[in-house]
Amino acid sequence: MSRTVLMLPGDGIGPEIVAEAEQVLKKVNEKFGLGLSFESGLVGGAAIDATDSPLPAETLESARKADAILLGAVGGPKWDSLPMAKRPEKGLLGLRSNLELFANLRPAILYPQLASASSLKPEVVSGLDIMIVRELTGGIYFGQPRGVRELESGERQGYNTYAYTESEIRRIGRVAFEAAQQRGKKLCSVDKANVLEVTVLWREIMNDLCREYPDVELSHMYVDNAAMQLVRAPKQFDVIVTGNMFGDILSDEAAMLTGSIGMLPSASLNSDKQGMYEPCHGSAPDIAGQGIANPLATILSAAMLLRYSLGEDAAAEAIEAAVSKVLDQGLRTADIMSDDGKRVSTREMGEAVLAAL
Amino acid sequence: MSRTVLMLPGDGIGPEIVAEAEQVLKKVNEKFGLGLSFESGLVGGAAIDATDSPLPAETLESARKADAILLGAVGGPKWDSLPMAKRPEKGLLGLRSNLELFANLRPAILYPQLASASSLKPEVVSGLDIMIVRELTGGIYFGQPRGVRELESGERQGYNTYAYTESEIRRIGRVAFEAAQQRGKKLCSVDKANVLEVTVLWREIMNDLCREYPDVELSHMYVDNAAMQLVRAPKQFDVIVTGNMFGDILSDEAAMLTGSIGMLPSASLNSDKQGMYEPCHGSAPDIAGQGIANPLATILSAAMLLRYSLGEDAAAEAIEAAVSKVLDQGLRTADIMSDDGKRVSTREMGEAVLAAL
Ligand SMILES: CC(C)[C@H](C(=O)O)[C@@H](O)C(=O)O
Ligand SMILES: CC(C)[C@H](C(=O)O)[C@@H](O)C(=O)O
Repeated sequence: MSRTVLMLPGDGIGPEIVAEAEQVLKKVNEKFGLGLSFESGLVGGAAIDATDSPLPAETLESARKADAILLGAVGGPKWDSLPMAKRPEKGLLGLRSNLELFANLRPAILYPQLASASSLKPEVVSGLDIMIVRELTGGIYFGQPRGVRELESGERQGYNTYAYTESEIRRIGRVAFEAAQQRGKKLCSVDKANVLEVTVLWREIMNDLCREYPDVELSHMYVDNAAMQLVRAPKQFDVIVTGNMFGDILSDEAAMLTGSIGMLPSASLNSDKQGMYEPCHGSAPDIAGQGIANPLATILSAAMLLRYSLGEDAAAEAIEAAVSKVLDQGLRTADIMSDDGKRVSTREMGEAVLAAL
Repeated sequence: MSRTVLMLPGDGIGPEIVAEAEQVLKKVNEKFGLGLSFESGLVGGAAIDATDSPLPAETLESARKADAILLGAVGGPKWDSLPMAKRPEKGLLGLRSNLELFANLRPAILYPQLASASSLKPEVVSGLDIMIVRELTGGIYFGQPRGVRELESGERQGYNTYAYTESEIRRIGRVAFEAAQQRGKKLCSVDKANVLEVTVLWREIMNDLCREYPDVELSHMYVDNAAMQLVRAPKQFDVIVTGNMFGDILSDEAAMLTGSIGMLPSASLNSDKQGMYEPCHGSAPDIAGQGIANPLATILSAAMLLRYSLGEDAAAEAIEAAVSKVLDQGLRTADIMSDDGKRVSTREMGEAVLAAL
């Protein structure tokens, strides 16, 4: 019963950080006798350079067969002028939609050791622990029709479609209600139901679902207010559920409240619990190849992978404890460096986690 | 040559705060001999209650004739279960679109006297002065088709359309480039050009326009990154230009960085410089009728009205100076109260501004 983990390093700092996470996975594989085997593949800009496609058929095939995927990051200025269909991001979006990874879980947690990294006052963020549940395979990211057309007047118009069906809303709603049940039992659904019809339906379905989860307290918030409340008093939230586009914006905003986006993992799951795991940060082309990127978000993504897709909680906890330990030791990559920290490279941070395991 | 200002108090705290701003406008009208005459009308929930329509024909007629409009706020739980077309918000949206008020200017300024109100660290926000230019009559707010339809499968789908034409993008772009010319000469255009075709066109037109404004430095940022950067280092921005939906979210986030959204005015202009002016905050139904709301955002909106639509800079500056003076005096409504502040009511704050004039 060998289980396969597919490594997709991608672009920018992706290869550097995935290399460290791979060492960590291999170590717990041995230590806990998990019976994992590892494969790797090309996606994003790296795949474009090698095969002219951001998501080669071979990668998609391996991804379908894998039990879980660990992704670095995709994109960079090198590929920015390519037409939409050939951009690195299409590799990521293609994986999400082909594997139906509709449930994106993005925790925003403030590590006590890194509290001073936040741009917010300590009393506003200390102890912050929010989970954002973002719908990932629908909404305006995938809505049809889309494109640029010429109007009768002769000028061009760009257009996209923001659409959700009842069943798409219901399945992400369930994931969010269940997450809330396992946490603080508070769920805030974010929409723009005072303006957008699609989110009126969203709100209606969330209200429907609520009856099945009587132990969860459901509230609704408009997206503009949510963007404000995250800045004003983020600790009012437990679980937030929202659509693809609003989730993209709010999860990044929430992540940045911690001041250490280099620490935050994410999971994208389908209904078979097959999942793709990746750091919340991007490919950071400006620091790629310098060996200074923070590998911890990717290492913590590997921990999420073990927990959510493979059910290996003990191994996941071991990794998380090891990360906490290296932070306690004062080890810091450049992005989380503070006055009393000990600055280390990507590789050194990875080695320290291995040693702590 | 009498010029008319239409007062639209609206809902919630709207009537209380507009009453104070009206006193202030009347005082400068006299003092500076501006020759203004004042009218008032119904909009939003107040109009629904009286006429069954959120934007009665009479109000629209007065609005068209007015040189400028001062609006309080619309909406509240009382009208939340009405169908979309009959909601208070439709009054506001109807005014914006009927008068073609496409350019929404939302400054996010940190008043030095209120620096401690921010949830961000002082060094991150001190001296903050950003201008967000939001497109207000296009994008997904007004895009067709929209609604909820039944699919062949029998389930319902909600849908909205996010669309912009070249000319819509160009006219808001010009407003933003001109605003940047009069400020720090830096313009950041926010889009999601790695995913949404409509914003690929947006970016292309902004790049085109840039050639006509060689003194302005144009940059582009994805909306998720912008939401992060506003939290991380908001002072990196001078002017931000973006579409209607992203502008709604980012301008509220930016406003909240100051911690005193009760202080922030906004202007919505058409190409004849006719404008509607309103505070950035909402109708705050929870504190309506208690006489404790902060009238300063509305009073500062009146100053913007004098400057942008009536060209009365001296009168505008007098109001702004008076507001600064009452803050120096330590007067504070509940929302901006601090340990050493002197707490005042809505009315007392209004009177203090009048006295300072
Ligand atoms: C790279 C981009 C397409 C992607 C998104 O917008 O979903 C990223 O921002 C993310 O949040 O994972
Ligand atoms: C009340 C609502 C329709 C409005 C908007 O979304 O534009 C408000 O949030 C604003 O920003 O002025």
